[in-house]
Amino acid sequence: MAVGIKVFAPASVANVACGFDVLGFALEGPGDEIIITKTNRKGFKITKITGGKLPYDPEKNTAGFTALKIMEHLETDIGLEMEIHKKMPFGSGLGSSAASAAGAALAINIALGEPLTKAELLPFAVLGEQIADGAYHADNVAPSLLGGMILIRDTKSLDFHKIYVPDGLHVVVVHPHIEILTKDSRGILKKEILLSQHIKQSANLAGLILGMQTSNYELIKNSLQDDIIEPQRAHLIPHFYKIKEAALSQGALGCSISGAGPSIFALCDNSFIAENIGNSFKKIFSENRIGSDIILSRINQEGTRLI
Amino acid sequence: MAVGIKVFAPASVANVACGFDVLGFALEGPGDEIIITKTNRKGFKITKITGGKLPYDPEKNTAGFTALKIMEHLETDIGLEMEIHKKMPFGSGLGSSAASAAGAALAINIALGEPLTKAELLPFAVLGEQIADGAYHADNVAPSLLGGMILIRDTKSLDFHKIYVPDGLHVVVVHPHIEILTKDSRGILKKEILLSQHIKQSANLAGLILGMQTSNYELIKNSLQDDIIEPQRAHLIPHFYKIKEAALSQGALGCSISGAGPSIFALCDNSFIAENIGNSFKKIFSENRIGSDIILSRINQEGTRLI
Repeated sequence: MAVGIKVFAPASVANVACGFDVLGFALEGPGDEIIITKTNRKGFKITKITGGKLPYDPEKNTAGFTALKIMEHLETDIGLEMEIHKKMPFGSGLGSSAASAAGAALAINIALGEPLTKAELLPFAVLGEQIADGAYHADNVAPSLLGGMILIRDTKSLDFHKIYVPDGLHVVVVHPHIEILTKDSRGILKKEILLSQHIKQSANLAGLILGMQTSNYELIKNSLQDDIIEPQRAHLIPHFYKIKEAALSQGALGCSISGAGPSIFALCDNSFIAENIGNSFKKIFSENRIGSDIILSRINQEGTRLI
Repeated sequence: MAVGIKVFAPASVANVACGFDVLGFALEGPGDEIIITKTNRKGFKITKITGGKLPYDPEKNTAGFTALKIMEHLETDIGLEMEIHKKMPFGSGLGSSAASAAGAALAINIALGEPLTKAELLPFAVLGEQIADGAYHADNVAPSLLGGMILIRDTKSLDFHKIYVPDGLHVVVVHPHIEILTKDSRGILKKEILLSQHIKQSANLAGLILGMQTSNYELIKNSLQDDIIEPQRAHLIPHFYKIKEAALSQGALGCSISGAGPSIFALCDNSFIAENIGNSFKKIFSENRIGSDIILSRINQEGTRLI
């Protein structure tokens, strides 16, 4: 049997306080592993799934659907078998399904001799993620695939742009062991907001982009606010405001919900602050008998990669 | 009699398509002139106003109120007389009252020996403009005073940031000779918008800021859209969509209402395109028996200045 192509696709943090549905960044880990092996039997097949209960039918599987769409686009029915090794939890707000889609896209592309660039793979990975998520958005899958912090200016045309990341920026994420379904978390959001909320939030997003591009930590700190989505979702995550208070009082630049939650992220301008905050996060959940994982990371500039 | 201190305060374009209430830039001209002369009689007085009918009572005059607030702050009742020479129309959407306030702030400060920086003058000029406008915002007065393209991240704390302006950027503005009162133009705006509109518009504002910072004209062009305010105000300006069509079909990066209108601005990546578009604007209004002025300008980086 041929040796498989093995790729790693990282977790990601979407929304990033003021960038609902349009901003996300990749973490160094955790991440999913996708293995593709060529076979003589034509067509695509999922042969192994570990780390989670997922459908083997490729049409119903984010990684599988991504693979099918790329093979359809390239008009190939070469024999390919996929193993999916989930190495991060579902429903964590860390872009689990996006990582599987991103990993599938890169692995399939390498197996087929790299006919497409990473950027050209993005639309297929977005379609794949949609199978799990229902909503068409790219603020997890784009950073997971391409790395970095990414602005999706327009989701329809997938007009995306990498944002400069200042050297000292560190991330701490806590994943409390409770589950929120993205669909539910999206369903509670009000369809209308005040014009005044839009003005404030869009100015903060503009400030965040400018702060990143110019390494202005004070501006990043002032801009990392979410007055629209966070207040509507905070009650879904026990002790959210206690966690946020702990982050800000220890010097985080900002702290908000990662994606649709329940994970919570904080951005910091150095690794010691991030580590201290991570310890506080763990302690707060532990005192309330909730298990949690802490992730300390920088923003992953590479995204999905061959391992 | 002592020789007066004479300053020039430029017109400005606020809102800039996707930056309602938070983004504005200064033009090279037209602009107001403010002259301050020291006298032996204590206290502040407006002695001459040309170019428009404005109150001589400093408490009711944008320039006068700005002067009073600065003198109050500096605890001085030195004798100062002010002449206000309006050199641009009221209600044009070009920040006429903001220019008077900015001019007053700089002129008074120079007359008093420059105790304050330009940035420190901003809050007083904002207070002054409020007399005319009713609303507390700084997207005209900040660029008029400080120059450049300015993001007001937070109006309350006046946290403002200059945006990098690519070298080739040119502006064309048409001021049709019809009047819209800012208060009316603001009054028709719906207090609520859709969350989906917010997502799209904030992504475009982020894209515009990133495009400016990185001299990415394609990104600037794609981002210069206003799907919230412009559709609500366009009907107040006859032939608006014809004007906009003329700009875009001739290669403008974007075209939208300047401030609350009726002036319309277009951004271009070279001066020839801007000039051609200006000619078209003039022709369209002229064919419809509406007089108009065309302004061709680069973004004025200096703002209010001594002349």
